[in-house]
Amino acid sequence: MKALVVVAHGSRREASNDEVRELVARLDDSAGGTFSVVCAAFLELAEPSIPDAIVNVIDQGAGHVTVLPYFLSAGRHVASDIPAEIEKARVRRPGVEIRLAEYAGSSEAMLPLLLDLAIS
Amino acid sequence: MKALVVVAHGSRREASNDEVRELVARLDDSAGGTFSVVCAAFLELAEPSIPDAIVNVIDQGAGHVTVLPYFLSAGRHVASDIPAEIEKARVRRPGVEIRLAEYAGSSEAMLPLLLDLAIS
Repeated sequence: MKALVVVAHGSRREASNDEVRELVARLDDSAGGTFSVVCAAFLELAEPSIPDAIVNVIDQGAGHVTVLPYFLSAGRHVASDIPAEIEKARVRRPGVEIRLAEYAGSSEAMLPLLLDLAIS
Repeated sequence: MKALVVVAHGSRREASNDEVRELVARLDDSAGGTFSVVCAAFLELAEPSIPDAIVNVIDQGAGHVTVLPYFLSAGRHVASDIPAEIEKARVRRPGVEIRLAEYAGSSEAMLPLLLDLAIS
């Protein structure tokens, strides 16, 4: 069983966190063929934390977890902070494959997405 | 002549600002049919500012400017801060149509973009 954990930064503004949760719920609806579970996690300021979310999907039966940073830039959060949080989950549930996907802003699909918004 | 100003938050980490500038340069290459000029601007921590970028494209001949927030959530920055910066440009160059596009995270294309990264 495969799980996907989408990691956002987290905001003091709860509506922003809820916006991420809603996006991830819609992703869960459309990702059924690939991921049995899709959930949101936050680097800071909101719950669940990254290790808590990973441990939770493993305890639901996931034997392979993909962590996807919902970030636009390859800054410190993507390069260091998220890997460090993943490591905390590895300590709590050793032996499960946890893979870090590329961050959102790195996608080649971002260009047409922006252009489409610009002309809408 | 139409111009597109892509607005990012701006970072203390110059590599993140450069990542935005490179993305916008690629957008400029692919948007020639719709926008004669595409440039980056930053809400804070980096240059150019939003009003400076808008004034610059107007002075290059743009009679219509689209401002596109490169943000993932509809927070205070998107709802209040960016419109306030646009207003400063309107005061400096009245009579030019300046339109605020939807922010990146609102795009329906974000779901397939994330799913594609997750399975790559």
